[in-house]
Amino acid sequence: MQACPLCAENGGLIVVRNDLLRVVLVDDPDLPGFTRVIVNAHAREMTDLEPAARLQLLHAVLAVEEVQREVFSPVKMNLASLGNAVPHVHWHVIPRFADDAFYPQPIWGTRQRETPPAVLAARHALLPVLRQRLVEHIGDLGR
Amino acid sequence: MQACPLCAENGGLIVVRNDLLRVVLVDDPDLPGFTRVIVNAHAREMTDLEPAARLQLLHAVLAVEEVQREVFSPVKMNLASLGNAVPHVHWHVIPRFADDAFYPQPIWGTRQRETPPAVLAARHALLPVLRQRLVEHIGDLGR
Repeated sequence: MQACPLCAENGGLIVVRNDLLRVVLVDDPDLPGFTRVIVNAHAREMTDLEPAARLQLLHAVLAVEEVQREVFSPVKMNLASLGNAVPHVHWHVIPRFADDAFYPQPIWGTRQRETPPAVLAARHALLPVLRQRLVEHIGDLGR
Repeated sequence: MQACPLCAENGGLIVVRNDLLRVVLVDDPDLPGFTRVIVNAHAREMTDLEPAARLQLLHAVLAVEEVQREVFSPVKMNLASLGNAVPHVHWHVIPRFADDAFYPQPIWGTRQRETPPAVLAARHALLPVLRQRLVEHIGDLGR
């Protein structure tokens, strides 16, 4: 059995970290704003976590959704806990836009287009704001 | 604007329904056990719901996960709230298997194989058990 990559590494640029979880920015050039909420301890499924930990994790996921909506005004939010490739609980929190590379497909579906570079640049330019608001909003959720 | 299909129709075979939500079986020949948890009232995003409703909905999603694990012993659980095509809050709760049509891809990714018919038939044969356990386990979650 290979080492779990989310036990061995952060899995992205850490924005917030507490005892239970970390919130990381995903470096995906097509999907600026894509954020993950990762449980620190190794757990395979949500229902392997204690009920209090599940709740705290889901609160963080929804807090990320709230901040992403505020910062990006996406056309839709996508939330997913899959883990087929990396079975260590992590949530994808993805702001979606009508002109993003995959919309209206899930981001795991067929690529639909190239987003205009100026549009992508404008969204990338909001990442410092996203980080700041995540720290303010999720830093408060406790540990 | 077209009528919302999840306001107009059940969206699957109803197994449990309460004031807030309904749990439906998805009729997908490749993915027996695929279940959705759908909010009854029209809401676009999780964070458009009241906090109590969010929690009740997520409790139901995790209760479905628990029952699916018990009934199918899947290799992995997949949870997702996307709604790009139908922006009315609904959760996909999907037991995944190493021999399912898409594994290890998300079910929205590239098809990987045909699952042996006998394997699919054996999983389909468990659907009455799934339904019964969902009623027992989620019927209790209250209204």
